[in-house]
Amino acid sequence: MTQTYAIGIDIGGTNTDMGLVRDDGTIVARKNLPTNAYTELSPYIRDIMAAVETLMKENKVESIEGIGIGAPNGNFYTGCVDNAPNLTIKGVLNFEKEIHRYMNVPVALSNDANAAAFGEMVYGGAKGMKHFIMFTLGTGVGSGIVVDGMLVHGSTGGAGELGHAILIPDGRQCSCGRKGCLETYTSARGIVQTFCEMRQEYGYKEMREGWIGNDMKDKDITSKMIGDAANAGDPVALATYERTGHLLGIAMANAVTFSAPEALFLMGGPTKVGEPLMRPLRDSFKKHLLNIFEGSCEIRMSELKANEVAILGAAALLKMK
Amino acid sequence: MTQTYAIGIDIGGTNTDMGLVRDDGTIVARKNLPTNAYTELSPYIRDIMAAVETLMKENKVESIEGIGIGAPNGNFYTGCVDNAPNLTIKGVLNFEKEIHRYMNVPVALSNDANAAAFGEMVYGGAKGMKHFIMFTLGTGVGSGIVVDGMLVHGSTGGAGELGHAILIPDGRQCSCGRKGCLETYTSARGIVQTFCEMRQEYGYKEMREGWIGNDMKDKDITSKMIGDAANAGDPVALATYERTGHLLGIAMANAVTFSAPEALFLMGGPTKVGEPLMRPLRDSFKKHLLNIFEGSCEIRMSELKANEVAILGAAALLKMK
Repeated sequence: MTQTYAIGIDIGGTNTDMGLVRDDGTIVARKNLPTNAYTELSPYIRDIMAAVETLMKENKVESIEGIGIGAPNGNFYTGCVDNAPNLTIKGVLNFEKEIHRYMNVPVALSNDANAAAFGEMVYGGAKGMKHFIMFTLGTGVGSGIVVDGMLVHGSTGGAGELGHAILIPDGRQCSCGRKGCLETYTSARGIVQTFCEMRQEYGYKEMREGWIGNDMKDKDITSKMIGDAANAGDPVALATYERTGHLLGIAMANAVTFSAPEALFLMGGPTKVGEPLMRPLRDSFKKHLLNIFEGSCEIRMSELKANEVAILGAAALLKMK
Repeated sequence: MTQTYAIGIDIGGTNTDMGLVRDDGTIVARKNLPTNAYTELSPYIRDIMAAVETLMKENKVESIEGIGIGAPNGNFYTGCVDNAPNLTIKGVLNFEKEIHRYMNVPVALSNDANAAAFGEMVYGGAKGMKHFIMFTLGTGVGSGIVVDGMLVHGSTGGAGELGHAILIPDGRQCSCGRKGCLETYTSARGIVQTFCEMRQEYGYKEMREGWIGNDMKDKDITSKMIGDAANAGDPVALATYERTGHLLGIAMANAVTFSAPEALFLMGGPTKVGEPLMRPLRDSFKKHLLNIFEGSCEIRMSELKANEVAILGAAALLKMK
């Protein structure tokens, strides 16, 4: 039986990761480029396509099903990246058109959270599911929503921005200019802010190894440190995840009222802490879930590897075409 | 050219309204039954089907495309009404099966808000739209969500319950048992509660004709009275709609982060007040809308007549089959 292959490209502000993906979800080989070395689209695409050709040649792959791309502000309908603030290449960038100058294959492009969601469906824990939502926790909070087996892109292509649903009206200032977005509480930065507020308010009554304590400066604290401290029993870190899980549980219960998914998936650095976040999250989700959805929806961790999900998700987008 | 016809049935706790609907959205003739006179499904369906036959005979219609039903807790996937609290006929009611004992035509069933949304798409202001959301304000707050031209029913059939998305964590007690649901602030009851709280807090400094004042007992106040008072310049009534519009605007902006709709539609008694609600609603929506959606989505009133929307919506559900 002949194997089929696709290219998955994950575009970040710093790096561009490319992978040759076999139909069974194996990343056969990878290449990367420094995204921030480019200020123009043409040379960037020229170098991407050179890498694609090399990937194919080195692995004796003669044809590919297409090129899938996960990118900030990626628009599925237009094949463009629209004014992504964290890219050094500015403006509305027509990736599809530019790629077609080199290779006439299908190009599918969406934002990174959408790609992660679709990757979970094609290669991960959401196989066979028709309705689910992926929440990606990182510097920000992203989401990808699948309804009836298709990603929801909406009328603009920009649907699925649950990190910017307002959870606490007039709450914390968000980088988007508004207040109280989910992201301000449950992103890595949000978790650090909660921790800093909490140790200010409650402080430490005793100190043990592995705890953060009051000596560390706010600006030096990372969400990874808070996660490690929570697993060492740090009471302020544990209280931080209690609050984070509580709030994320409300947001996830709210998402269920929209599309009644079978599962809500979680991925990203801040989720790696495990039970200190997951226990209060599950409790809050259960408490805040509307009764008609009881037992119909569970919270699950992404089953894709952290260093593969972006490339697999990008490649998976081709199945939407 | 031959006209085609369908039957639309709107099942409420008190009344069952039936209409013979022509393909162009004209309700040719109507019948009704007292829902609360029944405690068993069989005689209820027998009488419904007798009325359907009469409707067809009296209007010389020999065949229909099907029977569409909007009902509380109506499940599109199963064709059943699942334990609707406000119906006198209890349990899981298999409407589709029972109807097929009389007539072998397609039966499509969903809840009333979903039916209203789909009716708007087939016969009303959402014609040609692929992505929109209907909010129905009444005793409660319902919603129907259309993505890619299809109603979102989700994995359970119960999707689209935005009235029970939590807007204010730990806010007002909701009839669903949880706290802070949108419905507790923007339903008719929620508006009355806001008014009663506000006149308690601020009172009236002067009194003019058409205003409600402090003499009226809380339990005698209706949202219709508050609407009339607002249009007569009653400052407490106006402040009530300021707050209601403010909160509904946040909820609507949040809904946009989900599905990036072209429009958000509003219908129901509490919306009839007009500008006292709509002005603060539009202001709040604009203020709380994530910048990437600016200009892509507007708030509109339903274009269907209040006394026709339920029957037209029910008939429209057949287009989902």
